[in-house]
Amino acid sequence: MQTFEQLSSQFTEYFQQDHFPQEPATLYQPNRYFLQLGGKRVRPVGCLMGNELFDNIVPDAWKVATAIELFHNFTLIHDDIMDRAPLRRGMPTVHHKYGESTALLAGDVMLVAAYENLRKISPNFLVPVLGLFNKTAREVCEGQQLDMDFEQRDDVTLDEYEHMISLKTSVLMAGSLKLGAILGGASKRNQDLIYEFGRKVGLAFQVQDDYLDAFGDPEKFGKQVGGDIKANKKTFLLIHALQTADKGQRESLQHLMLTNSDNKVDDVLQLFRQTGVDQWARELQDNYLQQALQHLEDIAVTSSRKEPLRQLALYLVQREH
Amino acid sequence: MQTFEQLSSQFTEYFQQDHFPQEPATLYQPNRYFLQLGGKRVRPVGCLMGNELFDNIVPDAWKVATAIELFHNFTLIHDDIMDRAPLRRGMPTVHHKYGESTALLAGDVMLVAAYENLRKISPNFLVPVLGLFNKTAREVCEGQQLDMDFEQRDDVTLDEYEHMISLKTSVLMAGSLKLGAILGGASKRNQDLIYEFGRKVGLAFQVQDDYLDAFGDPEKFGKQVGGDIKANKKTFLLIHALQTADKGQRESLQHLMLTNSDNKVDDVLQLFRQTGVDQWARELQDNYLQQALQHLEDIAVTSSRKEPLRQLALYLVQREH
Repeated sequence: MQTFEQLSSQFTEYFQQDHFPQEPATLYQPNRYFLQLGGKRVRPVGCLMGNELFDNIVPDAWKVATAIELFHNFTLIHDDIMDRAPLRRGMPTVHHKYGESTALLAGDVMLVAAYENLRKISPNFLVPVLGLFNKTAREVCEGQQLDMDFEQRDDVTLDEYEHMISLKTSVLMAGSLKLGAILGGASKRNQDLIYEFGRKVGLAFQVQDDYLDAFGDPEKFGKQVGGDIKANKKTFLLIHALQTADKGQRESLQHLMLTNSDNKVDDVLQLFRQTGVDQWARELQDNYLQQALQHLEDIAVTSSRKEPLRQLALYLVQREH
Repeated sequence: MQTFEQLSSQFTEYFQQDHFPQEPATLYQPNRYFLQLGGKRVRPVGCLMGNELFDNIVPDAWKVATAIELFHNFTLIHDDIMDRAPLRRGMPTVHHKYGESTALLAGDVMLVAAYENLRKISPNFLVPVLGLFNKTAREVCEGQQLDMDFEQRDDVTLDEYEHMISLKTSVLMAGSLKLGAILGGASKRNQDLIYEFGRKVGLAFQVQDDYLDAFGDPEKFGKQVGGDIKANKKTFLLIHALQTADKGQRESLQHLMLTNSDNKVDDVLQLFRQTGVDQWARELQDNYLQQALQHLEDIAVTSSRKEPLRQLALYLVQREH
């Protein structure tokens, strides 16, 4: 069994291959640029780990992992257009550097390249792999649309937000693990368990993301805290605070969301603390994490095989940056 | 053997099915709207005709035809964003009606839906079908990028333009026919011949498109002639005119391209006639058409099976609107 770090380093090397033709360079150079910006490659490594949970890693797992990482980067390129984001990992986004039309098209052809990697796996796995990949891809698009819809609404419930995050963020991790499990010959029940493990880890990860943006240690977090607050982004924290606050606190919060004063972040954080949102978020996150670990526990393989995934879950959820 | 019109009407009915889930409606309603704008469905019917050339139409051909039409509509939605086009078939484009971010995402999920239709065919055809589909999709993206690149250049050669049109327009028709042929059990040689038939028909079609925009009968053409000229669009006509004009004519053309005067279209058309571009375009188009018909002739099936495709080629190329 290999750790996340070991597999991540192996995948990073494997993924160095050229994924695109040379010409037209105006289309493919932007994609090369974006891929070399790097990333933790959590999702493709999830596929490899989901595979190794059941058997030695098979060659097909590397191809599916490649498809997953290309798909993930396709979504990032298009999301950056929609969010009008100038930077990604501290570097100019594709649309910022090469123009919006090229970014749109570069993303499109990145998705096609993902499918071309899937085509190369053993034909007997192609139908189930393609089925789960398509379902996951569709759900990620749905999640992004819901996220945009929620920006226009001020009555988003916690259940709706969880559903959106599940689609936008969690199903790709869950699907990656399950794709690996399918290739490892896992039973239907084990496939379902690893999927739910990934989905719950994804939700816990998002709670931590929302928490760190508000309460993270600026030195460890690596970026300014309060970004979500400034943007009035619906997060686990804000939605819960609005729901549990008393009348006065809710009015203060709603009033703060209409302003852009210098002390907006501090004032909102104070209300978050008054309504106990910080403590609640810690509990919610631990709740998701414990559910995830229980699903992992229930998978019918020896405990030692599960250890790397257990470690990964703890790392992703307990990180401070 | 069925005619294009017969198969087009059958496909239109088949394609009425709902291709998307109900929710989120904010994502899928835009796609439903766009698909019901209609169209001639030439490419999916090409797949059915390529299939019937070799055998009775198999159930898989309908699924692949559906994937092709969804793919085509995905490219139209994204192209409209890139071209900032407000109208398509006389109706608001998706980004114009629903916003650019939703149009981008609606296109993405339309492409995923295309792949989901491919997944449903017999597994023994999946690898070759997916291979050709991916190659075609990649090339269509490359063609669109080249088209955008050419807008920034004034030294595009006829060979470069033909290559771009081949990718942007012809390979999807060629690929559709060949996908049908693969499902019909055609030999490798027959597959290649039907592909080249489609590619040449596509090129002849584009020459006709460029010709009609300049010399079409406004009453039959259905839209104002001279749109390409006003936009200084590189077309078969303009590129050839710039190459064959004498020094004075070339300078006049280049000067006209810098202006937006009321008589720009008339003046350019006069230069087109002086340089004999109108006659040349007719010959070029007939040349492509004859090559296409020769490829069709060379396919090793009885002549009567080829008649609907011969009629389609003549119709597409000789249309006056």
